[in-house]
Amino acid sequence: MKAAITLFEEQGYEQTTVAEIAERAGLTKRTFFRYFSDKREVLFRGSEELESVWLEGMAGAPPEASPLAVVAAGLDPVAELFAERLSFARIRAAIIAGNPELKERELIKLQTLAGAIEAALVARGAPANAATLAAQAGVTVFHVTFGRWVQQDDPGAFRALVDESLEELRAVTAA
Amino acid sequence: MKAAITLFEEQGYEQTTVAEIAERAGLTKRTFFRYFSDKREVLFRGSEELESVWLEGMAGAPPEASPLAVVAAGLDPVAELFAERLSFARIRAAIIAGNPELKERELIKLQTLAGAIEAALVARGAPANAATLAAQAGVTVFHVTFGRWVQQDDPGAFRALVDESLEELRAVTAA
Repeated sequence: MKAAITLFEEQGYEQTTVAEIAERAGLTKRTFFRYFSDKREVLFRGSEELESVWLEGMAGAPPEASPLAVVAAGLDPVAELFAERLSFARIRAAIIAGNPELKERELIKLQTLAGAIEAALVARGAPANAATLAAQAGVTVFHVTFGRWVQQDDPGAFRALVDESLEELRAVTAA
Repeated sequence: MKAAITLFEEQGYEQTTVAEIAERAGLTKRTFFRYFSDKREVLFRGSEELESVWLEGMAGAPPEASPLAVVAAGLDPVAELFAERLSFARIRAAIIAGNPELKERELIKLQTLAGAIEAALVARGAPANAATLAAQAGVTVFHVTFGRWVQQDDPGAFRALVDESLEELRAVTAA
């Protein structure tokens, strides 16, 4: 929601009220609450879309792909989705980094995402342990990549940064 | 706290009051609250000890060890600590699995732990990205291992299960 994120940037997240967001967006408060359960939801609404886009990307991976390759395939359409959203993502990341309660919510959303990825891997036939480890590794790679992406200026860099993070994970875990 | 965990097992976590825990342990409620901020803290107190034992183990790793090897070295003394606590851990795991709010708290504690491990790796000279990835991988391995350990009967099996999980993580992340 662009109106909200602009307000957050202008005057701070804590200081912005739902009434102000609704006004800026040309909505009544009642209409705002039809779409968002609370102010935080403006920041976290995207997590459902992220999950469905990621899972869709996984569904397109060839049957013989390894669990982590399947997870990584899900990040192709995620990278496309993100290519339009760097400035939103950057403001959002700064707000969350400054608010412990939002950081907790972000963690929980990421773990929900990991759970969905794990379930999708199991449904494809991956062994339970491999599915857990690949899902967690994938979400870690996503999280690390996201942190790098918002600190640079090319909106289209997400996919290349994913590959860098995957490569580093491989190097870190190699015996 | 053995009195509390026995009560949780006998009558359920939700149904157990602080007054009952204090009585069973021969404490006044006031004394209970001197040691624990609330009932949940009985389940999560151990996370501070886990962190300090894990970091101590990491401090003993040779300077040339890779980040993940350093993290894994921290799990040696953790395994020793856990060898005495399988029945507590098993009851605790069952309580947490059945309570979404406790699951969230557990996640947050694990991420706090990952943050401490990451900081310790950076302090040893690991590059920031490698430190993040190794810390997250280590906590994932810990979490997966813990889940397996409470489902089997040998209290001393923790370390061997860590090695299995590390091996599987390597297999999952290999190109």
